[in-house]
Amino acid sequence: MFEGDLKLVDYPIPERGEDEALIRVLMAGICNTDLEIIKGYKEFKGILGHEFVGIVEEHDNSDLLAKRVVGEINCGCGECEYCVKGLKTHCKNRRVLGILNHDGAFAEYLVLPGDNLHPIPESISDEEAVFVEPLAAGFQVTRQVQVKPSDRVIVLGDGKLGFLVAQVLAMTGCDLLAAGKYPDKLSLFKSKGIETRLTDNLGRREEADVVIDCTGSPKGFVTALELVRPRGIVVLKSTVAEKRGPDLTPLVVNEITLIGSRCGPFPPAIRALEKGLVDVNPLISGIFSIDNGVDAFKDASQKGTFKILLRVGWK
Amino acid sequence: MFEGDLKLVDYPIPERGEDEALIRVLMAGICNTDLEIIKGYKEFKGILGHEFVGIVEEHDNSDLLAKRVVGEINCGCGECEYCVKGLKTHCKNRRVLGILNHDGAFAEYLVLPGDNLHPIPESISDEEAVFVEPLAAGFQVTRQVQVKPSDRVIVLGDGKLGFLVAQVLAMTGCDLLAAGKYPDKLSLFKSKGIETRLTDNLGRREEADVVIDCTGSPKGFVTALELVRPRGIVVLKSTVAEKRGPDLTPLVVNEITLIGSRCGPFPPAIRALEKGLVDVNPLISGIFSIDNGVDAFKDASQKGTFKILLRVGWK
Repeated sequence: MFEGDLKLVDYPIPERGEDEALIRVLMAGICNTDLEIIKGYKEFKGILGHEFVGIVEEHDNSDLLAKRVVGEINCGCGECEYCVKGLKTHCKNRRVLGILNHDGAFAEYLVLPGDNLHPIPESISDEEAVFVEPLAAGFQVTRQVQVKPSDRVIVLGDGKLGFLVAQVLAMTGCDLLAAGKYPDKLSLFKSKGIETRLTDNLGRREEADVVIDCTGSPKGFVTALELVRPRGIVVLKSTVAEKRGPDLTPLVVNEITLIGSRCGPFPPAIRALEKGLVDVNPLISGIFSIDNGVDAFKDASQKGTFKILLRVGWK
Repeated sequence: MFEGDLKLVDYPIPERGEDEALIRVLMAGICNTDLEIIKGYKEFKGILGHEFVGIVEEHDNSDLLAKRVVGEINCGCGECEYCVKGLKTHCKNRRVLGILNHDGAFAEYLVLPGDNLHPIPESISDEEAVFVEPLAAGFQVTRQVQVKPSDRVIVLGDGKLGFLVAQVLAMTGCDLLAAGKYPDKLSLFKSKGIETRLTDNLGRREEADVVIDCTGSPKGFVTALELVRPRGIVVLKSTVAEKRGPDLTPLVVNEITLIGSRCGPFPPAIRALEKGLVDVNPLISGIFSIDNGVDAFKDASQKGTFKILLRVGWK
């Protein structure tokens, strides 16, 4: 639980609302957003965690009962203009699992609306299933932007999200380059056949058609504006807790299109894992029992660490 | 001439290069970019001015000779990847009339490549013809963004560019609102049947599908991000000489598309003036002889002034 600091506490099993399912958590993942929250982003207090796989223990729809599921994290009000249009991720009254007004997955049990849940095929392990949520955020890029097979594309950032986004982009057949600061992290990209470069070794103008900023750093966007061609596209996946951003004049002069990108579609992420189109296993840096969750967060904050998973229960 | 300060000087007639036409200037307009340049933007020194109408006095192509023309301001190298693709406005070696390495229109004569020139029909006055260049920048918005007739659109900024952009947007049949700081300026929009609102009286969320920032102020973009709906579009037409910009987190969270927009297509601007679809005459705040050009700049800098024109010659 996070209340200014992280601690292990006894906490009641959450009560499910109408249409909600009670889910027994098997495994959960620590995300950079969790690390940002404990630094003060979003001012969330409660149970953290929004990447998980679990078993449906209670739900009024019997089809989901006893199924192993992953869950979309945005809970819309179901009534506003956005929810009605299927844009519940933009509902203004939304609750967000482990991020906004809704306790998260670093606990034995969580509740989520049944509509948010997606059953997971047997062939996908618990460890892999935890990556459905961040992988879906990767697929949001190709949902928002038509990346052409002839495009030159640069993924900026050699962290977890960069690795997932790069694999999604590689699926398009585009001319792909991943750039980052850490040779050991970039070697992971290379092992997947993705061309890599240290960001410092990039030319000032790489004339990319599309640049995706997954750095999580305000500098990433400035670099992206230097790398993209005139009338090219920059996709911004980083939310940074800074009050001021970069000068936007180059964006106007070069007529760049900048696209903010957040949560994505779960079904393509599940399909990609099932078919082995994306490999998430190299990202697993360690697995902790939830009893050692506070230590797990320390490990997750280390430079060079990719994903730390928490084992919460067993099937 | 601008060399740290503005002055009236004797200056030689420019020599035309290969493919260039020598044009005798009839009338020219003072643009906000000119006012920014004399504040230091672009570090340009030389003859200012890029909005003009003139007569072709010398050119190797006889079709243009003696024609009254307006001219696109970007002179590409003609050989690079962008020029070959027809994107000379993004040529990296481009010269720009009165803005970058190319003397401008506040003089008796200027030179421009013949390909940049567009003959002006008799029915368009000199005064109106000077507005083709900024009006083309307005049409660049509807070239870049498909504004739907069902869209709610807000034009931010009640200056010259805002007035032109608002009239272009009104042509789409969209639900249009123009917002600005000055009731007297907004009354001009109202006279064209455009709904107006003081920016301070806008709700925090107007849920616009498209917002076009024509404020020329860094605050304009922040306001635009507040007014646009999730997954909506913000078009940025302002180049501001500031080193830092706004926080981009709302852009990511609301998955906004931000599009930088600059120079636009001349033919639709000429057609719109010829057919009376856009009225530029209310924007003319005063006409000075070029001999009083320095005074004209002082007038152009006054709050409440729209367009100041310079009469340079007569047909």
